[in-house]
Amino acid sequence: MRPELARIEAALARWVGAGAPDGLAEAMRYAVLDGGKRLRPLLVLAAARAAGSAGDAPWLAEAALRAACGVELIHAYSLVHDDMPCMDNDVLRRGKPTVHVRFGEAGALLAGDALQALAFELIAPLDDEPCDVPAPVQARLTALLARGAGARGMAGGQAIDLASVGQRLDEARLREMHRLKTGALLQASVEMGAACAGALPEAARDGLRRFGAAVGLAFQVVDDILDVTADSATLGKTAGKDAAADKPTYVALLGLDGARAEADRLFGAALSALAAAGLPDTAALEALARMVVARDR
Amino acid sequence: MRPELARIEAALARWVGAGAPDGLAEAMRYAVLDGGKRLRPLLVLAAARAAGSAGDAPWLAEAALRAACGVELIHAYSLVHDDMPCMDNDVLRRGKPTVHVRFGEAGALLAGDALQALAFELIAPLDDEPCDVPAPVQARLTALLARGAGARGMAGGQAIDLASVGQRLDEARLREMHRLKTGALLQASVEMGAACAGALPEAARDGLRRFGAAVGLAFQVVDDILDVTADSATLGKTAGKDAAADKPTYVALLGLDGARAEADRLFGAALSALAAAGLPDTAALEALARMVVARDR
Repeated sequence: MRPELARIEAALARWVGAGAPDGLAEAMRYAVLDGGKRLRPLLVLAAARAAGSAGDAPWLAEAALRAACGVELIHAYSLVHDDMPCMDNDVLRRGKPTVHVRFGEAGALLAGDALQALAFELIAPLDDEPCDVPAPVQARLTALLARGAGARGMAGGQAIDLASVGQRLDEARLREMHRLKTGALLQASVEMGAACAGALPEAARDGLRRFGAAVGLAFQVVDDILDVTADSATLGKTAGKDAAADKPTYVALLGLDGARAEADRLFGAALSALAAAGLPDTAALEALARMVVARDR
Repeated sequence: MRPELARIEAALARWVGAGAPDGLAEAMRYAVLDGGKRLRPLLVLAAARAAGSAGDAPWLAEAALRAACGVELIHAYSLVHDDMPCMDNDVLRRGKPTVHVRFGEAGALLAGDALQALAFELIAPLDDEPCDVPAPVQARLTALLARGAGARGMAGGQAIDLASVGQRLDEARLREMHRLKTGALLQASVEMGAACAGALPEAARDGLRRFGAAVGLAFQVVDDILDVTADSATLGKTAGKDAAADKPTYVALLGLDGARAEADRLFGAALSALAAAGLPDTAALEALARMVVARDR
């Protein structure tokens, strides 16, 4: 997926901060460029490839690139705000000082806010920017991203997380929190990729949706495992901080071996869902699911 | 405009916080409901009425209501984040404790983030919510709102504002800051209302755009005047804080009489632009422009 990664980086470098006042542009670019696994945008491109292999959509590549960058900007803004002193108060991210350390709290707050808006600017640009993506595709991408980012998605999951520090959640509640906090945006990535192709058979849409849900949950289980087993240098962020903050995690709930078994089970569910989608070109999606489960940072 | 106001309040009460986790929903509703002049949503509805009076768009009322609530949510989130300790550190807003005072800083940060996402969820809903607004209208509303809210709009203006505390701006730079910080979203309100009607003659679109720009700037000039002349009880927020923070304002630049003359000049420019739009039903827009200039809070 090296060419896809290069396209994503180039597009982000072109779009992020363009037209913004100097200081704000610098903080936005610092938050987004030169870092991150780009898992979400890669999922968008891979899902677009799988969904597009059936039909003929000349705008597919552009729609997928805009959607890929949009979802990455939502992810990036959430990290900027999460790291702020009033939230996780973290000073290290992707091996660099966090945005509020570098640009001040007000600068980080504003950069995050502007990144969220930019996600939607990219997906639905005004007439002064050339864009060949049909309006119905733009509208559906907006809907999926907004739902995935908002109170019924990522922001809702963070709110549950915030309220649950020091509490003992049962597995159902923990799963619900993660389904929203991390899963919603990962699932949205897959669904957005699928939406780039326009209309899809119901089986394909449903299979991709279930694939995204399983990968999203697996990601969080592995995150919880790495928080315990990896060191800060490898992670590029502070390790062990969930345990230190007495946050509920899969490891706390299931033990380390139980969490590993759960990650494997979710990987299997993702592959079954993908097979049920009945699409020809799903190798990249499969590889990304494997990467999510096998990653060491 | 009492019926319009009632429709806006009812729609916000129905939409804000729906489906969100309890604590988050409460903070979002606290930030939005039961307060505010609703100037931006009223501008959307008035512009939709003016633009729609020419053609026949059965979805017009729904599109305008969704757009009206969307722009109000962007405004509301910006106030929540602005009031936070790292920005203006304000404890009073609309006569009530600010959101971070009531729900903590992390709660305010998340509520603001979720409100921004909700703005786009309302304008471009997923299939599980009934919506008769055509996709091209949804896409254009998204584009206008995202641009108005982002780094080339409101967030950009706030960044300039932040960087300019204690600095002496000349009139051109001050005007540019306010054009973005307050003007962009007010102008977007008018353009979003116009977009609800679908295609419009170029003269109408241009006239409404210039009307929105003049009203947006007039709003800020009057804000600067009120910061000096009104008391906190009338304003429902802390008076005199711009001067205390040594922020550049129109009053600091032009003096009180000069600022008043500038507000009058902009009101005249707004009415001229409206006349040039050549639309039949512009009484509500005219009344709103008058309200912006004559308001005492």
